[in-house]
Amino acid sequence: MKAKVHVTLKNGVLDPQGKAVQHTLASLGFDGVDNVRQGKYIELDLLETDADKARAQVDAMCRQLLANTVIENYSIEITD
Amino acid sequence: MKAKVHVTLKNGVLDPQGKAVQHTLASLGFDGVDNVRQGKYIELDLLETDADKARAQVDAMCRQLLANTVIENYSIEITD
Repeated sequence: MKAKVHVTLKNGVLDPQGKAVQHTLASLGFDGVDNVRQGKYIELDLLETDADKARAQVDAMCRQLLANTVIENYSIEITD
Repeated sequence: MKAKVHVTLKNGVLDPQGKAVQHTLASLGFDGVDNVRQGKYIELDLLETDADKARAQVDAMCRQLLANTVIENYSIEITD
């Protein structure tokens, strides 16, 4: 199975990387950008063939390594 | 409008960050992970209200700043 994981900063947490992108876009002439938030996108190929077990595995991975749950949210999508 | 942009390394391009994640997952006991690829996920809030124009704008942003099109692919999703 494949897992697609999005890790994003929680609302209210400052995102200096996003702000830097926004300012650079403005300096390039893209002035219609109100806000930018940057997160991580992780694709995993799993040997597990059961979708529920795969999701539970990836959830544990997110909590232990992929996301800092103090300041980040994560979402998991499981596909074949 | 909102734009969601995924920037991922092209196939065949080495992904040391993904390999590091894979090895760390293995050392944590997650041994059913065949491959890991890490990319970027960017959310933009745009003042533009026309979906086609918004997509064209974000496409230009990707080519000029957000993605290195030599080694990276990008995909754009426009929502309200």
